[in-house]
Amino acid sequence: MDLRMIMMGFGNVGQGFVTVLNFRLNFLRVRFNVRPRVVAIVDSEGAAVNRAGLDLEKALWVKRLKGTVAFYPRCGRLGVTGLEVLEDVDADVVVETTITNIVDGEPGLSFILEAMRRGRHVITSNKGPLALAFSKLRDASMKYGVQFKFDAAVGGATPVISLAERCLKGNEIESVEGILNATSNFILTRMSRELCSMEKAVEEAQRMGICERNPALDIKGIDTACKIVILANAIMNRNVTYRDMQKVEGIENIKVKDLIEAQKRGFTIKLIGLADKSRLLVQPLPIPLNNPLCVDGALNAVKLKTDLAKEVIIIGRGAGPVETASKMLNNLIDIIES
Amino acid sequence: MDLRMIMMGFGNVGQGFVTVLNFRLNFLRVRFNVRPRVVAIVDSEGAAVNRAGLDLEKALWVKRLKGTVAFYPRCGRLGVTGLEVLEDVDADVVVETTITNIVDGEPGLSFILEAMRRGRHVITSNKGPLALAFSKLRDASMKYGVQFKFDAAVGGATPVISLAERCLKGNEIESVEGILNATSNFILTRMSRELCSMEKAVEEAQRMGICERNPALDIKGIDTACKIVILANAIMNRNVTYRDMQKVEGIENIKVKDLIEAQKRGFTIKLIGLADKSRLLVQPLPIPLNNPLCVDGALNAVKLKTDLAKEVIIIGRGAGPVETASKMLNNLIDIIES
Repeated sequence: MDLRMIMMGFGNVGQGFVTVLNFRLNFLRVRFNVRPRVVAIVDSEGAAVNRAGLDLEKALWVKRLKGTVAFYPRCGRLGVTGLEVLEDVDADVVVETTITNIVDGEPGLSFILEAMRRGRHVITSNKGPLALAFSKLRDASMKYGVQFKFDAAVGGATPVISLAERCLKGNEIESVEGILNATSNFILTRMSRELCSMEKAVEEAQRMGICERNPALDIKGIDTACKIVILANAIMNRNVTYRDMQKVEGIENIKVKDLIEAQKRGFTIKLIGLADKSRLLVQPLPIPLNNPLCVDGALNAVKLKTDLAKEVIIIGRGAGPVETASKMLNNLIDIIES
Repeated sequence: MDLRMIMMGFGNVGQGFVTVLNFRLNFLRVRFNVRPRVVAIVDSEGAAVNRAGLDLEKALWVKRLKGTVAFYPRCGRLGVTGLEVLEDVDADVVVETTITNIVDGEPGLSFILEAMRRGRHVITSNKGPLALAFSKLRDASMKYGVQFKFDAAVGGATPVISLAERCLKGNEIESVEGILNATSNFILTRMSRELCSMEKAVEEAQRMGICERNPALDIKGIDTACKIVILANAIMNRNVTYRDMQKVEGIENIKVKDLIEAQKRGFTIKLIGLADKSRLLVQPLPIPLNNPLCVDGALNAVKLKTDLAKEVIIIGRGAGPVETASKMLNNLIDIIES
C-alpha cells in the first residue's frame, strides 16, 4: 500500500520525524505492507515537492547545509507556501510540525484545518493550535472523517495522552498533574545541583540545545500551560482554551536560596501543571524529594489520577527530536492500522 | 449489542472485575451500546449460571457470605466444574482469574484453551498459564480467531504491556526492568522505614491484605520471574518460558542491616526483575534513592528501554482487586471496539 505524506514544517521535530521514518521504512514495508512516500516538505522559506517521493536523507542534508529544503536539487523552490503545497499536492497524511504560536496558532492552525478539509489525516506536534482551538480542530476532523493525532504535542517522548486513551479505557481521569516542560526542569535541576544562577543554567541549557534562544515560553510557564489545556481537553473531556487558565506562574522568580531552603526540608521546587475538574494551574511548587514526580534534568513526569486504577505515573524524555518524533511514528502506525 | 460473559474464578481479582463491571454497566451501554451480561460465574466449589444474566451485586454478596457462588439462589450448584460450564453455556467472552499455579498452569491453562477452542475471547489475570505456555496460548488465539488479553497478569494496575503495545508502536523494546511485585516491595519498604524484621513486615502485609497467607511466591521472586517471562514474550518478541529464567533470587535473605548499610550510601534494596535480549533475571539490587524506579510501598515501577523514545517509566499500584480489574475493563472495551 502506498502512503503519501506531506511534511509541514521542517525544524527539529520535523527533521526528527523524517529521520525516524527513514529508520523504519523497511519495518513499515515488512510489517504493514506500507510504502510511505514523503511527497512534499515545506519550511518557512519554501518547499521541495516530488510526487514519486523525496529522498529523505538528501532532504535532511539540504536542510542542514542550506537552512531550507527549498534548495533540494530540482524539486525545491523558494517562496512556495504551505497552503499552496496543500492545494497542489495529493497526500494521505499531513505531518504538521510548524513553530508553536500561542497568539493565533498560525500558520499551523490554517494548515491543519486546510489539510482536514482536503481529507488528509493529520499528525501534529504543535501546541499552539491545540491550546487555542482544540474543539474546532476536533470537530473539523470529525466533519471531514479524518484522523487527528496530537500525542507529540505533550510530553516529548513521554506518552501521556495515549496512555490515558489506550491503557486506561473505562477509567475516569480525575486530574493530571506534573512536570511537562523539559527546559525549566533542566534549569531547576542545574540550579539546585550546581547552586548556580538561573542565567547560568539557561546558558548551559542553550549550549546543550535543550533551550531555545528565547526561553520565555518555557520559563514563564506558558509552554506548560498550553500542555495542561491540551490534556484537559484531550483526556478529561473538558472544553477549555488557554484563556481559561486560572494561574500561569513560571520559574523566573526562583532563586538558588529557595532551592536550598526547600532541600533542607526534604523538598525541591518543580514547575507543576495541574488540570482537574475545576482548576487549570501552572506554578512552581515544593515537591518531596522521594515523590515519584520529582524527576531531574530534561525528564517529564505526569501523574494521572483515575477512579479505578487510582494513580498512574508516566516518566520519559521531555525533549529530543527523535524521541518526540517516535510518538508521531506511533500515530502514523495508528493511521496505517485503522 | 449483547455481550455474554463467563467468569472463571471468583477470588479477589474476579470479584474486583465484577465490581468494576457493575460500576460501568451504564457507561458501556451509553458509550458503546453494549449490554454485558454475566451468564456464569465459576469458583473452586461450584458455579452460578443464568443465561439471562446474573445479578452482580447478589453474586458478590453470596460469595462474601457463603464463600462460594454455588449458593447463589436458584442458579447456583455445588460441584459444577469450569469445563462443564464452558461446554454448557454460550458466551462471547471468558474472564479467567483462577489461582496462579506455576507448576502446570492448571486449571487456568485448560480453561483458557477450551474457551478459545469454543471461539470465546479470553481476558485473563493469571500468570501461571502465560509463564509456562505463552506461545501455545498465542497460537491458539490465532488459530481460533479470538482475542487474548492478559494485561492484568503483570503490574496490577500499572499498564506495562499495553503501554509498550499501544503507546510505543514502532519502537524496539530493548529491555524491561523494574519492581513487579507489590508484596515484596511493601515488605522492603516497611523494613527500611520501621527497621523491623522481615517476619514483622510480612505479618503487617498480611493484616493489610497485601500478602497471601503463604508469601513464598512473592518473597522468593517467583511471582516477579513469571512477570518477566510474560513481558519478554509479550513485548520483546522473545520466545521463553519460566524454565529459561537464568536467576531467580528473592528477598528472603535481606536483613535490616543490609537496608541500613545501603541507605548510608544513598541507596535502598529493591527486588528487580530484568529482561533484555539475552538475560532473564530476578534479584535484589541496590537502587539509588533518587532513581525513579525507587518507589515505595505496594507500588510497581517498570522502565522500558526503547531505541527511539529511549527510557519510559511507568509507575502504579501493583495490587488491589479493583485497580487490577480496571485493566480487564480496558481489555473488555478493546474487545467491544474491535
